[in-house]
Amino acid sequence: MSLRVKFGLVVKALRKEQKLSQEELAEKAGLHRTYIGMIERGEKNVTLENIHKISQALNVSLPVLFSRMPE
Amino acid sequence: MSLRVKFGLVVKALRKEQKLSQEELAEKAGLHRTYIGMIERGEKNVTLENIHKISQALNVSLPVLFSRMPE
Repeated sequence: MSLRVKFGLVVKALRKEQKLSQEELAEKAGLHRTYIGMIERGEKNVTLENIHKISQALNVSLPVLFSRMPE
Repeated sequence: MSLRVKFGLVVKALRKEQKLSQEELAEKAGLHRTYIGMIERGEKNVTLENIHKISQALNVSLPVLFSRMPE
């Protein structure tokens, strides 16, 4: 499984745990909904700043976000 | 302090702890030396895949790398 796909699965799992739609997460993160969809499908090599926006929108620290990712 | 600068400082600190030059880290990570220099100076919004290459080259997991970053 590629790194992008793993990251997308973690974002999706955290989003669902918080009962947020992609639209709601996108709005909280200041990103576009379609971009969130592409990230969750593993289609994006996300940048550090967007990773941070997403982690803040999901109320998790970067270490916690990445600890959810299978090695 | 910007996120990019914080990330650069962590990469530099971990590299120095392992007594690696920028050149040696770049070679281990499969990245260009000048790119490592720019990252350490906080000039790059690094992508997920390059973050992962750097963490592997530094022998630290992504959670450990990001736990070193001040919030």
